[in-house]
Amino acid sequence: MDAVSEERRARAALARLMEPSDWVGLGLVASVGPIDALRIATGALAPGNGLEAELLRVLDRRSGQPEQSMLQDGLQRWAPRVKDLAPERDLATMERLGGQLLVPGDELWPPALADLELGEPLCLWVRGDPALAVPPANRTVALVGSRDSTNYGNSVTGDIAAGLTQRGYCVVSGGAYGIDAQAHRSALAAAEDPSLPATMAVMACGLDRYYPAGNEELLRSIAARGLLLAEVPPGSAPTRWRFLQRNRLIAALSGTTVVVEARWRSGALNTAHHAAGLGRPVGAVPGSVYSANSAGTHRLLRDGSAVCVTDAAEVAELAGPFDALASSTPQEVLADHDGLGVEDLLLLDALPVRKGVSVDKLVPVAGLPARTVLAGLGRLQARGLAAQDGSGWRRAQSS
Amino acid sequence: MDAVSEERRARAALARLMEPSDWVGLGLVASVGPIDALRIATGALAPGNGLEAELLRVLDRRSGQPEQSMLQDGLQRWAPRVKDLAPERDLATMERLGGQLLVPGDELWPPALADLELGEPLCLWVRGDPALAVPPANRTVALVGSRDSTNYGNSVTGDIAAGLTQRGYCVVSGGAYGIDAQAHRSALAAAEDPSLPATMAVMACGLDRYYPAGNEELLRSIAARGLLLAEVPPGSAPTRWRFLQRNRLIAALSGTTVVVEARWRSGALNTAHHAAGLGRPVGAVPGSVYSANSAGTHRLLRDGSAVCVTDAAEVAELAGPFDALASSTPQEVLADHDGLGVEDLLLLDALPVRKGVSVDKLVPVAGLPARTVLAGLGRLQARGLAAQDGSGWRRAQSS
Repeated sequence: MDAVSEERRARAALARLMEPSDWVGLGLVASVGPIDALRIATGALAPGNGLEAELLRVLDRRSGQPEQSMLQDGLQRWAPRVKDLAPERDLATMERLGGQLLVPGDELWPPALADLELGEPLCLWVRGDPALAVPPANRTVALVGSRDSTNYGNSVTGDIAAGLTQRGYCVVSGGAYGIDAQAHRSALAAAEDPSLPATMAVMACGLDRYYPAGNEELLRSIAARGLLLAEVPPGSAPTRWRFLQRNRLIAALSGTTVVVEARWRSGALNTAHHAAGLGRPVGAVPGSVYSANSAGTHRLLRDGSAVCVTDAAEVAELAGPFDALASSTPQEVLADHDGLGVEDLLLLDALPVRKGVSVDKLVPVAGLPARTVLAGLGRLQARGLAAQDGSGWRRAQSS
Repeated sequence: MDAVSEERRARAALARLMEPSDWVGLGLVASVGPIDALRIATGALAPGNGLEAELLRVLDRRSGQPEQSMLQDGLQRWAPRVKDLAPERDLATMERLGGQLLVPGDELWPPALADLELGEPLCLWVRGDPALAVPPANRTVALVGSRDSTNYGNSVTGDIAAGLTQRGYCVVSGGAYGIDAQAHRSALAAAEDPSLPATMAVMACGLDRYYPAGNEELLRSIAARGLLLAEVPPGSAPTRWRFLQRNRLIAALSGTTVVVEARWRSGALNTAHHAAGLGRPVGAVPGSVYSANSAGTHRLLRDGSAVCVTDAAEVAELAGPFDALASSTPQEVLADHDGLGVEDLLLLDALPVRKGVSVDKLVPVAGLPARTVLAGLGRLQARGLAAQDGSGWRRAQSS
């Protein structure tokens, strides 16, 4: 086995041995590389004398554990899983499913994940067309939200997902019920560019299963035309911890994260906070103040962690300059009196709607000198706002 | 006539001669005082040689007019209205209506208007119980919005106005249809403190008329239990200019301004911008992204000029420390797993829901060393999250 494939095999094994964001495990890999990290973690190699100190240096203050026992704690944590290690079997499973394993350094490894620093995943399991690559973060937008979404939330999600897809963005979500499913569905329906994943679902469980079961058909479609991603190996169950850690991957893979609907406490807010922590822009969709499903998005708007977004164009504006089609501002409908100076505005107010009046009568009503009235009437007439008839000056029909 | 009443009379006359925010007129009053300003404006007193220079100094760069003719322009603007001046008549009209005239320096003059600097109104015409004073700005909140409000907007306005009134704030609005009317109505319904105006309506027309006619009954109620205010004298028609200037008074009288519903272009946004210009906090109520009546509030949220507010408590928080009853944060419903450490969370995820399992079986599932599992099971049991039965450990019923 060459060094490259041995490293892949080691990362695949470590991903089963260690939970996502196991800081000691990640620090160990950062210190000695994945191959020796696996040897140490499985007890095949004794840790060198300086390793504990090196780990302390690498982890800085990231570890909440008592410093002395950090590595020992890790070894005890990993030991019970050593007997289950079978990276070749996991790699074969993925291959059979038409998937692949990505590791840092691979050409297709998403560079945006490096923003997670030490929290960068050990590897990514990917299911989907092997010709499809994870798009760069400036072309991806995460749309996340409640599982128990409302009709309103589904509708907004559908509009935004379709609009973003039409603009060439790839919509990322978590493959769950509700907002996630609607985002994926609308992206699949709107996608036309075969060189881009129609949508990407980042899962909290192994990619050998479709979870939740009610989304099986949807997840199959994503595997066919988009990408399914996970950092946990095949066979992994979706636990609460893995959901929380999965949210950091959604945030890290996406240049922009938008929360469409979220209750006061919601996993979608966790994704938003991960995104904010990475310095990525976060959007939140407003809704009724009476909807519990908008309490979380309003909370994000209120505390300033998210920008108010109401349609795909505004999300595209938030996502930045990649977008060529976005237009953030509705066409301004110019009112008749736009751009008028104060005096002309006063004069327009003074003009009668029906029967015309003389300039002499306009002067006191408008509170303007006669020459200003005369000049102003000319300007208003030129703009079609004033008209002159036998009885004098009045507003033109159009005003 | 004593000096005090002569000044009141002069300001009453100037308010008819000059439109609101007539900078030259206001500069003239600032330069020579209201009595001489009236003499000069009416041609009874020739302007001194240094007056034009003094005006330039007072107005700084506020005037958009060519500097040389500033005073002459003013004189020509005011001249046509001189023949209509009848301040004693206006004062008598107000007295007959049970109203009064307030001028700067009066004990009841709202000090918050001084923030308008040179734009402070010449005087305020007030209708209502003479025992009622305009409350200080930290006890007043403006609720403004569309005339063509939706049921949603009316409902939110009603809730916020009632909640603010119950908290001891005075609700200010513009007496118009829609959001304004709903704000006044709900404040009247909720008001219980007879020492405070039940609500205040700042009008764009003279207080001798009830405008708009459809709100006559409401405006009568406000005159009975609250206050009607205007800077224009009795008999003045509500013109576009006066509406725009009226908005600055709403903003200046209110410590906080909240826009409940506003279209993309709306007078309510003008009020919000006045408030922001005065450095006063501005709130905006979110709504459906499909409602044209929320496009303006979303615009304020999006450009950062307003804070998202969804109920009276959040408005009260924005308004600041006067409020004793406000509570900004809904009671957090603690989830079972709140406050658990990472290891206990992993352990909780690993616990089966139905049949108990041994610690040996939990160890590899949780990916934790045996002693951590044992300690964690103790903690989870203490929190009612884990239970032990004949077959081993499982989640407790409540989790």
